Formats: sequence, C-alpha cells, structure tokens
Amino acid sequence: MVYYFRSIVGNFDVDDTIKSISPSKQKGKTTVPKEKMTQALVLLKDPQYYDKFSQENMKLTKQGLKESVNEDQLIIQTISNITELERICNILSKRLREWYSLYLPEFSEEMQSHEKFTEMVMTQTREELMQDLSAKKTMGADLDQVHVDEIILLAKEIISLYKLREKHEAYLEKIMKKYCPNLVELAGVTVGGKLLELGKSLKRLALLPSSTIQLLGAEKALFRHLKTDSKSPKYGIIFQHPFIQKARRQDRGRMARSLADKLSLCCRLDFFKGEFKAPEYKKELEEKMQQ
Amino acid sequence: MVYYFRSIVGNFDVDDTIKSISPSKQKGKTTVPKEKMTQALVLLKDPQYYDKFSQENMKLTKQGLKESVNEDQLIIQTISNITELERICNILSKRLREWYSLYLPEFSEEMQSHEKFTEMVMTQTREELMQDLSAKKTMGADLDQVHVDEIILLAKEIISLYKLREKHEAYLEKIMKKYCPNLVELAGVTVGGKLLELGKSLKRLALLPSSTIQLLGAEKALFRHLKTDSKSPKYGIIFQHPFIQKARRQDRGRMARSLADKLSLCCRLDFFKGEFKAPEYKKELEEKMQQ
Repeated sequence: MVYYFRSIVGNFDVDDTIKSISPSKQKGKTTVPKEKMTQALVLLKDPQYYDKFSQENMKLTKQGLKESVNEDQLIIQTISNITELERICNILSKRLREWYSLYLPEFSEEMQSHEKFTEMVMTQTREELMQDLSAKKTMGADLDQVHVDEIILLAKEIISLYKLREKHEAYLEKIMKKYCPNLVELAGVTVGGKLLELGKSLKRLALLPSSTIQLLGAEKALFRHLKTDSKSPKYGIIFQHPFIQKARRQDRGRMARSLADKLSLCCRLDFFKGEFKAPEYKKELEEKMQQ
Repeated sequence: MVYYFRSIVGNFDVDDTIKSISPSKQKGKTTVPKEKMTQALVLLKDPQYYDKFSQENMKLTKQGLKESVNEDQLIIQTISNITELERICNILSKRLREWYSLYLPEFSEEMQSHEKFTEMVMTQTREELMQDLSAKKTMGADLDQVHVDEIILLAKEIISLYKLREKHEAYLEKIMKKYCPNLVELAGVTVGGKLLELGKSLKRLALLPSSTIQLLGAEKALFRHLKTDSKSPKYGIIFQHPFIQKARRQDRGRMARSLADKLSLCCRLDFFKGEFKAPEYKKELEEKMQQ
C-alpha cells in the first residue's frame, strides 16, 4: 500500500491529494483519518492510473529485492558451498584410494589423511612411494603409464577442490570480520558461518534466545525429545567448536550453555553495531573451562 | 594346495619327493595316487617347513593378486568416477546458479544448460551478459568485485570438473576399443562401461543370458515385479542407448530385447577374441527400427 502511495507521490500530478492523505505520525502512532483514506481508495479505483501503478510498484519491488541482498546471503552461500566441497572431496578421495589401490594397495592403508594421500599420489611416483614405505615389492599391478596418468588427473582435481575450499574460507574470514567481528572472533569461520546459515540471517540470530542458538542444528533430536521421551540434545552445530570439543564429556552440556550465551551476546553486538567484546568473552570461557 | 606343492618344488631340497607325488595328468584327468598323497600330507605336517610354506604361499598369493588386475577393473573405476563427476557437476552447478542469482537472477532463468551457464559466468562480465539478454536493469545486487570473484572461482572449478569427465571418456574409449571393440562399437562408451560395471567383468557379462543383460541396472524393479504383482521392467541401463531413446514408446520393449541380444553376442565375441562384427549388428538393428 505504501508503495502505491509513494509511486503516486513521485510521478503524478495528484501530489497534494496524496500528501494530504498520507499517514500522519503523531507521538509514534500511525493513524490515517477515515475520510482521507476514502479519498485515496477512490483514487486507486480510477482505471486511468492502473498501468502506472503496476509499473511503479514493479520498479519499487525490484529495487527492494536488489537492496535486500546483503552479507548474510553471501556468507550463507559460501558456507553451504564449503560444506558441499568437503563432502565432494571425501567422495572423490575414496574413489581415488580404490582406484590407486590397483596400482599400490599398500599405500592407501599406510596414509590416513585424504588430503595428504592425494597430494602424495599426485607428486610422487610409485617407486618413490615404495621407498617411503620401505617396501620392496607390491601386490599392485604394473599398470602402463597411460592408466596411471588417468588416476593422477583425478588426484589433481581433488587437490584443486581442496584449494578452492581454502580460498572460500579465507574469503569468508575477510567478509565476516567486517560484518560480524564478534561472532567470528568467538565462533571461528566455520561454526560462525554455519550458525548464520541455520539462523538465516544475523538479524534473526540476534533476536533468538541463547538456548535456541545452543540447539541450532539439532532440530531433529529436539523434536524427537519433545514428541517422545528421549533425552533432550545438549548442543547443535556449536558442538564443533573447540571449547566443547576440548571439554570433558560431563562438562560439555554446561560448556555449551555458556558458549551459546556468549555467542548470542556477540550476535547482538554485531547486529546493533556494538563494541568489539569477543576477546573478553573468550577469556571468560577459557577460565570457566579450566575450573 | 597346489601353491604349497609348487612352493616346495621351487625352493626345497625335497624336490624329488614332491615331483614324484605331484598330480599325474592322464587323458585330461587329474589323479593323485593315494599313497603319494599320504606322503605329501606327512611332509606338510612337518613343522620345519611351516614358515617357508607360509612365506611361499604369501608370495604366490600376492603374485596372483597382482596378475588379477586387468582392464575390467580399470574400466569399472573410470566409469564409476564419470558417474560420480556427473553428479558432482550437477550439485555444484545448482549452487552456482543460486549464488550467481544474487548478482544477476535473470540469467539463470534464461540459460537451461548447466555447462553453458557455468562457462558464460566464467568468461563474461555482468554487463556483457545483460547485453545478451537485452536487459537494461537487473534485480540483482551490485556486488563488489571481491564477491563476484569468489563466484567465478567456483565456476572455474566446475568447468575443470567437466573437462576431467571428458578426458576420462576419451581414455575409456581408447582402452575399451582395444579390450572390447564389439561392445563399445555397439553400446558406446557410457552404456558399455556401465554394463561392465554392473556385470562386474567382461567374462561374467559374456556368460550372462541376454535377458539378464537387458535388465542389468533394473534390479529393484525386477525384484519388485517378482515379489508383488507390479509390471516387469523392460530395460535396465540400456535404456540410455540411443536406439531405445529414439524408438517409439510402444516399440521400446521389443527394441530392448533385440539390442540386449546383440550386446550379449558382442560381449561373447570380445571375450573369446572373435571377429569384429558389431557394425553388422548395428545395421541389422537400424533396419529393424525403421520397420
């Protein structure tokens, strides 16, 4: 409705009418006198303005859409992509292990880390790898170079996916440090990003109670708890935070509550452009953990 | 058992004993005289040979494993990876569309093909794309170059995944043309590879009845048909073959049967090193399709 009014105000020769009927703000209260409202409605019913109304409204809506994009969406897209890339790297690394094991099965067992495995496959020949393993013979088949090359192509691709993830993380850190310095300081890039993803936006995150932040990402367990008599979850995505990872098992619930508390404060500070207090909170939590 | 015997023959000073008890082949029949068998068993029970037996057996088993790798496994790994890459490209392309739509939403609607979309995003700026769309204004936000760069990084990665798939396909064609020329000629690289993947090996594929080949990949529907009274499936993975794709709906079942028939013949020709008859079959099927 306000859009309609504004569109008229901007372009038509009915300015005065509109201005006279636009909501008059008195002491914070918005009231439109009844007779003026009627006048406006009559105006809206006039077919000669229909097309222009619609055009103007479309323009304003598009403008609104354009302005609605902010850091929230960018952060959410990036963090979703990071999660996706992680999953993809795992899938492809497993395939690489299976494939390379036709050639040198002993190596896949030896090397636990996917990333390191991929890198070694890419950079070293079988002979070099066998020296590292101090193995003289292998069960693997003696494949022609043409087959091995194909495996190495896959390894290269995986490495470049890992690199893309790293770049995304660096980018995320940069924009989050500007947009929500407190949150990213306390939560870190990954957990902070995932909180934003689950909370949809910094605004909504700032308005959520800290107990909800504590359980973001554990919705399934929460509703199972509410419906049946299963135990209530103690933490959602913040479980990945080092403070909770490092805490003893019996302390984790308590730690999650304190952490969610501080995270909630951070979100509010960031959203309402408050001070940079996260390091203080971090210290407090660290002290709590040592008790 | 034969391994044990061989291991002794190769390295021990009990050669003669072993040779005298090794299976004597007469008219194709393998028989071991009873008393000699007893002699051998006594030998096997002698603890002084245990270690060497075990070592030799291990060596021979490893050798056996080494020799068991053949084109089958390589083809299966490659085709599985191609399938994986296809899925991954789709997932990442969807993410790219969503992300890029913050910047230029009009373009994602316009462009259907994922691959082309990705390429255009990578190579052209928003202004150029808008010219192509003959749009003057966009609903997308005016993002800083920093943000756009991050999107373009993702696009580059997707393109390189597409390229990897192409390389895999070329490689597959090369090795399949050597290993199973008939099958690849009639079925094509993708369908042929998937048949090998589902059939586990060319040998097993050659021994399967053609009706099984027709339904490879439709196991779920087949067992549902056998257990309940649902309709039996008409085709498995060979549904992707152009002959079936091009056939009219009511002809597809019949076409699948004929195609599976010829594919089965091709597998047999390839496995038993027969002639190159696939083009003949292809012609026959084409004629059948035109009737």
